[in-house]
Amino acid sequence: MVFKKVTLIGRSSESFEDAVDDAVGRAEQTLQNIKWATVTNQAVELAAAEREYQAEVEVAFELEDGIGE
Amino acid sequence: MVFKKVTLIGRSSESFEDAVDDAVGRAEQTLQNIKWATVTNQAVELAAAEREYQAEVEVAFELEDGIGE
Amino acid sequence: MVFKKVTLIGRSSESFEDAVDDAVGRAEQTLQNIKWATVTNQAVELAAAEREYQAEVEVAFELEDGIGE
Amino acid sequence: MVFKKVTLIGRSSESFEDAVDDAVGRAEQTLQNIKWATVTNQAVELAAAEREYQAEVEVAFELEDGIGE
Amino acid sequence: MVFKKVTLIGRSSESFEDAVDDAVGRAEQTLQNIKWATVTNQAVELAAAEREYQAEVEVAFELEDGIGE
Amino acid sequence: MVFKKVTLIGRSSESFEDAVDDAVGRAEQTLQNIKWATVTNQAVELAAAEREYQAEVEVAFELEDGIGE
Amino acid sequence: MVFKKVTLIGRSSESFEDAVDDAVGRAEQTLQNIKWATVTNQAVELAAAEREYQAEVEVAFELEDGIGE
Amino acid sequence: MVFKKVTLIGRSSESFEDAVDDAVGRAEQTLQNIKWATVTNQAVELAAAEREYQAEVEVAFELEDGIGE
Amino acid sequence: MVFKKVTLIGRSSESFEDAVDDAVGRAEQTLQNIKWATVTNQAVELAAAEREYQAEVEVAFELEDGIGE
Amino acid sequence: MVFKKVTLIGRSSESFEDAVDDAVGRAEQTLQNIKWATVTNQAVELAAAEREYQAEVEVAFELEDGIGE
Amino acid sequence: MVFKKVTLIGRSSESFEDAVDDAVGRAEQTLQNIKWATVTNQAVELAAAEREYQAEVEVAFELEDGIGE
Amino acid sequence: MVFKKVTLIGRSSESFEDAVDDAVGRAEQTLQNIKWATVTNQAVELAAAEREYQAEVEVAFELEDGIGE
Repeated sequence: MVFKKVTLIGRSSESFEDAVDDAVGRAEQTLQNIKWATVTNQAVELAAAEREYQAEVEVAFELEDGIGE
Repeated sequence: MVFKKVTLIGRSSESFEDAVDDAVGRAEQTLQNIKWATVTNQAVELAAAEREYQAEVEVAFELEDGIGE
Repeated sequence: MVFKKVTLIGRSSESFEDAVDDAVGRAEQTLQNIKWATVTNQAVELAAAEREYQAEVEVAFELEDGIGE
Repeated sequence: MVFKKVTLIGRSSESFEDAVDDAVGRAEQTLQNIKWATVTNQAVELAAAEREYQAEVEVAFELEDGIGE
Repeated sequence: MVFKKVTLIGRSSESFEDAVDDAVGRAEQTLQNIKWATVTNQAVELAAAEREYQAEVEVAFELEDGIGE
Repeated sequence: MVFKKVTLIGRSSESFEDAVDDAVGRAEQTLQNIKWATVTNQAVELAAAEREYQAEVEVAFELEDGIGE
Repeated sequence: MVFKKVTLIGRSSESFEDAVDDAVGRAEQTLQNIKWATVTNQAVELAAAEREYQAEVEVAFELEDGIGE
Repeated sequence: MVFKKVTLIGRSSESFEDAVDDAVGRAEQTLQNIKWATVTNQAVELAAAEREYQAEVEVAFELEDGIGE
Repeated sequence: MVFKKVTLIGRSSESFEDAVDDAVGRAEQTLQNIKWATVTNQAVELAAAEREYQAEVEVAFELEDGIGE
Repeated sequence: MVFKKVTLIGRSSESFEDAVDDAVGRAEQTLQNIKWATVTNQAVELAAAEREYQAEVEVAFELEDGIGE
Repeated sequence: MVFKKVTLIGRSSESFEDAVDDAVGRAEQTLQNIKWATVTNQAVELAAAEREYQAEVEVAFELEDGIGE
Repeated sequence: MVFKKVTLIGRSSESFEDAVDDAVGRAEQTLQNIKWATVTNQAVELAAAEREYQAEVEVAFELEDGIGE
């Protein structure tokens, strides 16, 4: 049982929690067996009309046998 | 007047703020004179049915004289 | 087109997002062309009666020609 | 000739070397031209009956032309 | 709209800029919507007859819906 | 359910794994509900006749209600 | 004699050296007695038609007496 | 023989050395077998009338058998 | 109430404390409401005839409303 | 009594401990009074037929008077 | 076969690559078997009339048997 | 003109400044053209009867042509 970690950046106009959920939700579309995510960066985009909270997360999931890295 | 810092991890299904408060609230059960807490890590536990936000905090409090480290 | 970054600490009794917005809102009083902000530290002040969430952010903005650093 | 690095976590009840080998061995199932791996974290899982050593490694391999990132 | 970051190492006998371009150019063969890249390490390989500049970069791109991590 | 982390340094003349186990074993004498340990430093003491491997670990355990920090 | 450091981000379509010079040149428009600059981040902007190298630098200069921070 | 490290913050109106000694001296009231201390942060408190130097130190001591963490 | 942090480098032929005080004293000439300073680097200049201790500090002060960043 | 630290990289086909011992053993050929070594990096070389564990260590030894740095 | 790393700072009025080559070229005057170099810092000296790019590099070379550290 | 940096640990029963001077003074016995030193670690040894302040410094000096690394 080996885990892999991928780095995603989610976004939300509401909160950092929603930005994290945005990234995790996207990961769940194509990955099985997601176990945890660690927040590695938080930022706010201010150039557009509305503030956008951003969260960079490392998402860890269990690799299935024989399926690509 | 010397301060001590201890490292706690709080959890919440709602937000990182609640996870911080969870850790700080637990510290307040047994520690006097808590002054501040610094967030040193944020993560999300995804293995269970419900997402759980986690916050690692260093809680700083004033040590009273003659009481154990 | 050169950007400058300044370090501010905002505060809120509600959430880390509000603490970030507090710092960014203050920056917008005197700075033009703010583009993004990065969260570099999160803490909670516990000495007062009410908890206060604090966020240290690096605010990046575009420098106008010939105007002071 | 471009290299790519992926982050894997291997596990072993014996040693950190076996945990590293576990991650590298899994990578070798689907990746060609693996060159080196760097240990970025070491931990021990203690919740289960048996101790489990864990090693997080960044595995570097040579990308072949025209094959997906 | 979620971003993903992958870590690549490019190489060049000329300059660090060319090494960065080497990695980014390879990424553009298989990835759409690349937005930015951050340099995370710079090195020089000296064992061979010619010096080779190397740049490790984190390449960020926008993930399309329903396409694999 | 709040976790606490304490920092211990274990030692062994055999291996880093034994040094980690030394620290964890000592923690188990007085702490309940230990969950995991992270290796934060590895060193070798060479002043004495025999080499001694040392491992600094952060041991995480679940705090019981109403029991001191 | 006290020094102050400010953080600037310069840009260039040619090289990281030009991006550094861009930031330093802008600083020299309004600051006297600039002594050195340290590169704290290097990145490439890829969203536009042309690649743009970016360098974040901390520029150190000598503060004159009685002139604002 | 296992060591434990605790994090303390000492203070002094005179010097950083006195601030370190303040923290170590407090540790010696309740801990046996203190071996060394590492300085992990230095700061100055300026809000009060008098400047106060502060030193955060990690104090390492030998744990006795069967005595609580 | 928002804080701002600026980075200064003070110098002294006597001690690191004096070098810190040198930077803080300079800040007090033009800034109101300075609250604390964190030491982020310590060095010694040895090229001249006399040794010179240097301290880089981040000085934090409260921003007044409507006054420039 | 002044200590000096040098950075060595040892290698072994067996374990990280052997790789550390490889570096320390080499240091003992030419250096007196070696006191301790800190592990600063661990990696595995995978390009050759056999795996090779590598450990980067900082070896600290006491400098004798009047003998070259 | 043990490697040693030494830290050098090279300089150039042209580019960071030349500054790296400056340091590596100096190392090749007295060291055999240099394998690679890692860039650990980049700066620009601005006090003199001409800008000078500086690169701090860790140069790794293979130690020969019985020859001094 | 290339600089080299070496890592030394000086000690003093009086202060961190004296510990820095101890390391620098030892370097001056065998090295020419020392330019500056950066403090990379501060600690206190407490096992002996008297406290001993320790400072780890990186000492930078100009390498002369054709003289060993």
